[in-house]
Amino acid sequence: MTGVFITFEGPDGAGKSTQVTLLASRLQEVRIRCITTREPGGTPISDKIRGILLDPHHRDMIPRTEALLYAASRAQLVGEFIRPHLESGAVVICDRYVDASLAYQGALGLDREELARLNHWATEGLEPMRTYLIDVPAEVGLDRVRARHSVYGVMDRIEERSIEYHEAVRRWFLGQAQISPRYRVIDGTLPPEMVAEAIWRDVKILLNL
Amino acid sequence: MTGVFITFEGPDGAGKSTQVTLLASRLQEVRIRCITTREPGGTPISDKIRGILLDPHHRDMIPRTEALLYAASRAQLVGEFIRPHLESGAVVICDRYVDASLAYQGALGLDREELARLNHWATEGLEPMRTYLIDVPAEVGLDRVRARHSVYGVMDRIEERSIEYHEAVRRWFLGQAQISPRYRVIDGTLPPEMVAEAIWRDVKILLNL
Repeated sequence: MTGVFITFEGPDGAGKSTQVTLLASRLQEVRIRCITTREPGGTPISDKIRGILLDPHHRDMIPRTEALLYAASRAQLVGEFIRPHLESGAVVICDRYVDASLAYQGALGLDREELARLNHWATEGLEPMRTYLIDVPAEVGLDRVRARHSVYGVMDRIEERSIEYHEAVRRWFLGQAQISPRYRVIDGTLPPEMVAEAIWRDVKILLNL
Repeated sequence: MTGVFITFEGPDGAGKSTQVTLLASRLQEVRIRCITTREPGGTPISDKIRGILLDPHHRDMIPRTEALLYAASRAQLVGEFIRPHLESGAVVICDRYVDASLAYQGALGLDREELARLNHWATEGLEPMRTYLIDVPAEVGLDRVRARHSVYGVMDRIEERSIEYHEAVRRWFLGQAQISPRYRVIDGTLPPEMVAEAIWRDVKILLNL
């Protein structure tokens, strides 16, 4: 495996997809082959699973089903897309990954060690080399999501959960960042170009640029 | 848990759904409350997962994704449907269950101990009290499926696998029946009424009728 696998985590509304795009263009500017994707989704099969996961009508979905669907979408994305690109030597940037399941399905009450084991099996143990946690208070993220949806439509099934739920998710991410050496926490309330600059400084070290 | 959980296993074309219906009517005749369902599917969310699993266009689905989608469909069926009915004291009859994943996804090369662990988590350890294996040679099952589809449409993604695959599935089921005391093997090449009679004799013992 010669490529480098980078993930972005943080709440909806943190600005992850903007930062994934900005990082990808910077890498392309310095002629580094770079592929971006997002979870859940990223392959035709994973996108169909995404449709089931986010459908606001699926209020009866039990937490284990949710965790297994995320793991299924991820298994397909890793097997069909991420791993082949890493093997070809590319930098692969993914918007959300296993840690998002530990955060979000863990905050539903599922045991995080069991979730980790499930996802280790689903991904055949593929771990990112670097994880950027774009941190914003839960309220800030939700406000940005609401503003977005006032134009584009309704909240999805995960977004519409309570503020307490989203705060528990944030606390887990911040705790994880303290114990996992691959994490870098970036303040997502800063202007996007400053967030991008902080990430780029770190990526240059990571890739020896 | 006061109900009784019965599963049917065996290849496509073995006559499982006919036998599930016949057993349910016999139980209703003797005034035993009985609910039937089938896998994958059985709830609105599980039926959407079924659609992804069986779609013949999804040729790129990797084995782990397939196993996780079956487990997701099953988690929802158990949590939303089977467990509540068992808790209310009903007999629940399910056409396929965890053993089908061990047989079919195991025959794709996945480790069966890992599949068992995954499904134990998905179902919170819910096991059937009795499993009827309706056994027919793989060729016989596939011929019946082909005859059915010459009227109704195309083969699904699992049915269209090779005869060697379906023979490996059958061998695993027969081996499992020898080591698991909850199994009863019924010869599915017999006329349906004789199969039903053999099952009914055993169910009367199981339920003390």
